[in-house]
Amino acid sequence: MAVVIELPPLVDHHCHGVVRGELGIAAFETYLTESDAPAAPGTTFFDTQTGFAVRRWCPPLLGLEAHCPQASYLARRRELGAYETTRRLLRGSGIGTYLVDTGLPGHLTTPAELAAAGGGAEREIVRLERLAEDVAGACDSAGALVEGIAEAVHTAARTAAGFKSIAAYRHGLALAPEPPAPGEVRHAAGAWLEARGAGRVRLDDPVMLRHLLWTAVATGLPLQLHTGFGDPDLRLDHADPALLTDFVRSTAGTGTDLVLLHCYPYHRQAAYLANVFPHVHADVGLALTHVGARAGAVLAEFLELAPFGKLLFSTDAYGLPELYVTGAEAFRGAVREVLGGWVADGAWSAADARRVAAMLAADNARRLYRLP
Amino acid sequence: MAVVIELPPLVDHHCHGVVRGELGIAAFETYLTESDAPAAPGTTFFDTQTGFAVRRWCPPLLGLEAHCPQASYLARRRELGAYETTRRLLRGSGIGTYLVDTGLPGHLTTPAELAAAGGGAEREIVRLERLAEDVAGACDSAGALVEGIAEAVHTAARTAAGFKSIAAYRHGLALAPEPPAPGEVRHAAGAWLEARGAGRVRLDDPVMLRHLLWTAVATGLPLQLHTGFGDPDLRLDHADPALLTDFVRSTAGTGTDLVLLHCYPYHRQAAYLANVFPHVHADVGLALTHVGARAGAVLAEFLELAPFGKLLFSTDAYGLPELYVTGAEAFRGAVREVLGGWVADGAWSAADARRVAAMLAADNARRLYRLP
Amino acid sequence: MAVVIELPPLVDHHCHGVVRGELGIAAFETYLTESDAPAAPGTTFFDTQTGFAVRRWCPPLLGLEAHCPQASYLARRRELGAYETTRRLLRGSGIGTYLVDTGLPGHLTTPAELAAAGGGAEREIVRLERLAEDVAGACDSAGALVEGIAEAVHTAARTAAGFKSIAAYRHGLALAPEPPAPGEVRHAAGAWLEARGAGRVRLDDPVMLRHLLWTAVATGLPLQLHTGFGDPDLRLDHADPALLTDFVRSTAGTGTDLVLLHCYPYHRQAAYLANVFPHVHADVGLALTHVGARAGAVLAEFLELAPFGKLLFSTDAYGLPELYVTGAEAFRGAVREVLGGWVADGAWSAADARRVAAMLAADNARRLYRLP
Repeated sequence: MAVVIELPPLVDHHCHGVVRGELGIAAFETYLTESDAPAAPGTTFFDTQTGFAVRRWCPPLLGLEAHCPQASYLARRRELGAYETTRRLLRGSGIGTYLVDTGLPGHLTTPAELAAAGGGAEREIVRLERLAEDVAGACDSAGALVEGIAEAVHTAARTAAGFKSIAAYRHGLALAPEPPAPGEVRHAAGAWLEARGAGRVRLDDPVMLRHLLWTAVATGLPLQLHTGFGDPDLRLDHADPALLTDFVRSTAGTGTDLVLLHCYPYHRQAAYLANVFPHVHADVGLALTHVGARAGAVLAEFLELAPFGKLLFSTDAYGLPELYVTGAEAFRGAVREVLGGWVADGAWSAADARRVAAMLAADNARRLYRLP
Repeated sequence: MAVVIELPPLVDHHCHGVVRGELGIAAFETYLTESDAPAAPGTTFFDTQTGFAVRRWCPPLLGLEAHCPQASYLARRRELGAYETTRRLLRGSGIGTYLVDTGLPGHLTTPAELAAAGGGAEREIVRLERLAEDVAGACDSAGALVEGIAEAVHTAARTAAGFKSIAAYRHGLALAPEPPAPGEVRHAAGAWLEARGAGRVRLDDPVMLRHLLWTAVATGLPLQLHTGFGDPDLRLDHADPALLTDFVRSTAGTGTDLVLLHCYPYHRQAAYLANVFPHVHADVGLALTHVGARAGAVLAEFLELAPFGKLLFSTDAYGLPELYVTGAEAFRGAVREVLGGWVADGAWSAADARRVAAMLAADNARRLYRLP
Repeated sequence: MAVVIELPPLVDHHCHGVVRGELGIAAFETYLTESDAPAAPGTTFFDTQTGFAVRRWCPPLLGLEAHCPQASYLARRRELGAYETTRRLLRGSGIGTYLVDTGLPGHLTTPAELAAAGGGAEREIVRLERLAEDVAGACDSAGALVEGIAEAVHTAARTAAGFKSIAAYRHGLALAPEPPAPGEVRHAAGAWLEARGAGRVRLDDPVMLRHLLWTAVATGLPLQLHTGFGDPDLRLDHADPALLTDFVRSTAGTGTDLVLLHCYPYHRQAAYLANVFPHVHADVGLALTHVGARAGAVLAEFLELAPFGKLLFSTDAYGLPELYVTGAEAFRGAVREVLGGWVADGAWSAADARRVAAMLAADNARRLYRLP
């Protein structure tokens, strides 16, 4: 017996802006992968699950046949122009709320522009390392830097929906779990300012990364942590969320919620942490966006141990409005396939399946980020 | 072509007692998870695969509809009383033999009580760390402690079906693989007695943990090793059974069998070890009990590399008689789905599928633990 | 709507020779596993996915019913003789080209014999550690050894299709990523020659292993790297391909392609590396050969992140001609099940599925190894 599982407008609790200008085929292709290198000779990133998912879901939103050749799709995209393409794709995505990580470089749309194009609501997620790098650019002493970070984090907390850390690919997740002592922080801040003077602007000092984490924890806003794949800079095995276990224990009494982003291929480890620790949540985004036809299989693995109230939808879309569509369609398709299958088998009731689908799609994020 | 795979009464080679008294909804809920913390605000452990599996399989055994609300189920449970509920559930579980790890604290039923309520046979599995902690409580010198442990293990070996170690969550599985030297053991025993005097009763010293493992190995009885998830104290990545490889090599010539318990999410690693080393076996319990509708998928992953004569059923049920039912139903459903599917595809013959099903359900455990 | 996916003759880019003589049941059984130990008492390696796959696919090629008892199968094998059995099985495998790693010991067929029996083409893959061990046997000074290796590698490169390293089970993949300095190499070569004098012939020195890797990289031929399961000597967690990330980064500018062999159970990690780094490829062989009815599930996991132009078929068959058949059938069945399923769901177009199937089966290997 097939069950119909309707989903409410989605809350995308982790995404980025889209590029403003027109994109040629070569530039377009670079957004289909987490790699920062061109495709190998003789291959193309269109020949990936992400590429096939774009060709499945997006052409019909622009008036073409699904699976049409990429050249036809890009021609149609140019014909419509970047703004109209973005508007049509976002409005076709079924996403109602965007929580936007604004820490990426490049000429990307602001949260307000994104929400306007998509006809939805928006909130900001503040990336800690970017915030610190911006503060450091205007500081000339360790003391000023430490104070500046404190002020910037607390100012951001007044409007942001949450914070995000990319310590996973700046250092790896095997960080000492306790907050660094003030003297250590001051020393690390000074050393970093000196390195900046010599041109090393990127923040990758583990003491400073830990200091940012604990400064964010003190605000009480949800803290998103990059784990698993998603950036060419990382060592995948250094991004296993299990490495965060001691940090998770250290923050258990603070009242601040942690959200493990991406997680793949360690999503069973992330689901375990969400099961065992009340303040830990996990995110299916990026994973589902990039595995295309396998989204149901990956979602099902998340749903082995993750309590259904602790798992959140996102797209982690970046650059291309297409990725909002594929992330959202992958999620909706996966929910219907997996939960619908369990209802058909008698493992779940239809009422439970509908309730859990709404939790994953929007309710969990609304509760966690205190959205209206 | 659908095949009917009948299963014999199951041998549950690793389980615990059930609580004796009545349980309110809050107390009941704590047994649905391996966490030791309450569910996050706004969430409940009933909204997990374990919770849904209980609501699927148990209400009909107490005369209610499957998937009825948990409140109705718990009301019916109270109406019947704890003893009658336990009796009905255990007798409905299809388990014929219980190998009971008696090392957990709390007012739990004894193996004999469990077997009487369930109408089956029982044997004891002796938890090494608990045994040592009990011995230490009555010792005042390192020498007496070392001797006491030797005597207690050898006494236990006369009646127990096997031993169990929880070194995975007392220290982690990255233990030195060889037996510690007698002088080291004496020194560690003395240090532990001193720590006990200061109130630190829990045994987590790696020398003592290794000494217990090797003392158990010397008895020739099967030795169960906790690996993977299953206790909030552990670091999941420190419980990867691959970390046991050198210990497995060290014990290869002893004639003693090792059984890797739980394993998830490292069950493919456990299956690999069972494939490569004759004395290594793996256990599907806990994993299947806690992933509900996903039991077939997880069993199938075990069955990639594990020789079919090396994989054993258990529930790891603890506290709730419901978990015997869900563990057994998850296993039977998974066997029918997975093996039945392979027969339908022509990958396996029906005769082979029936034979392997019986091996997993009971025959492997009977051979390994020398049960009648 | 079911789609028919035809596959071209396969390019098996990593396999070994078959044994020349007749095999009794006990000897036959040892080739069904990667273990070097006999099956546990009361069990047999015929009761594995590999054993069941042999009984599924091979009897019909010798005129028997699928799933017939192993005793009947082996009797028929003896009746036909080793040569005729090998000829029938290889010709029934659908493999057109064999790239043969000739570094294994034992009386195995040469690449030319294998190709003649199978009616296909062949090329050699040269195993670096075996090459170095052969050179060392004829050297009496560190200088001569270093020179001899350089010469042997460059000679081999003139005819070989590629090189292979088994550093994974000689030392583990956590090797320093840069080439060792000449002085270090000379020192290590001397120490190894001395150890050889004392009877330790096996090359497991990490400096020498790295030197071999970099000597092979300098030839520009594809370099195959053992990762994941596949040899009883290895520590599985030391063979996680993610451990190679820094070596992958170090070799990114060299123009030499890397091929991660086997990968299981870390195949998602391997697929990630193939996605992010242009010169990294991954191999489904051994994994698919040994998981039988689960080949579709494992292939699907590979296809989550691996670009479709970066994944290659192999059997890793060794010893038994049966393993060519099961590896090839597992692959073809998996491709049809997985890609066919995606077409049936509308996720992929039929044309894309056919194109990707041909890439995995042969086209990717032809491009990578520059085959006609």
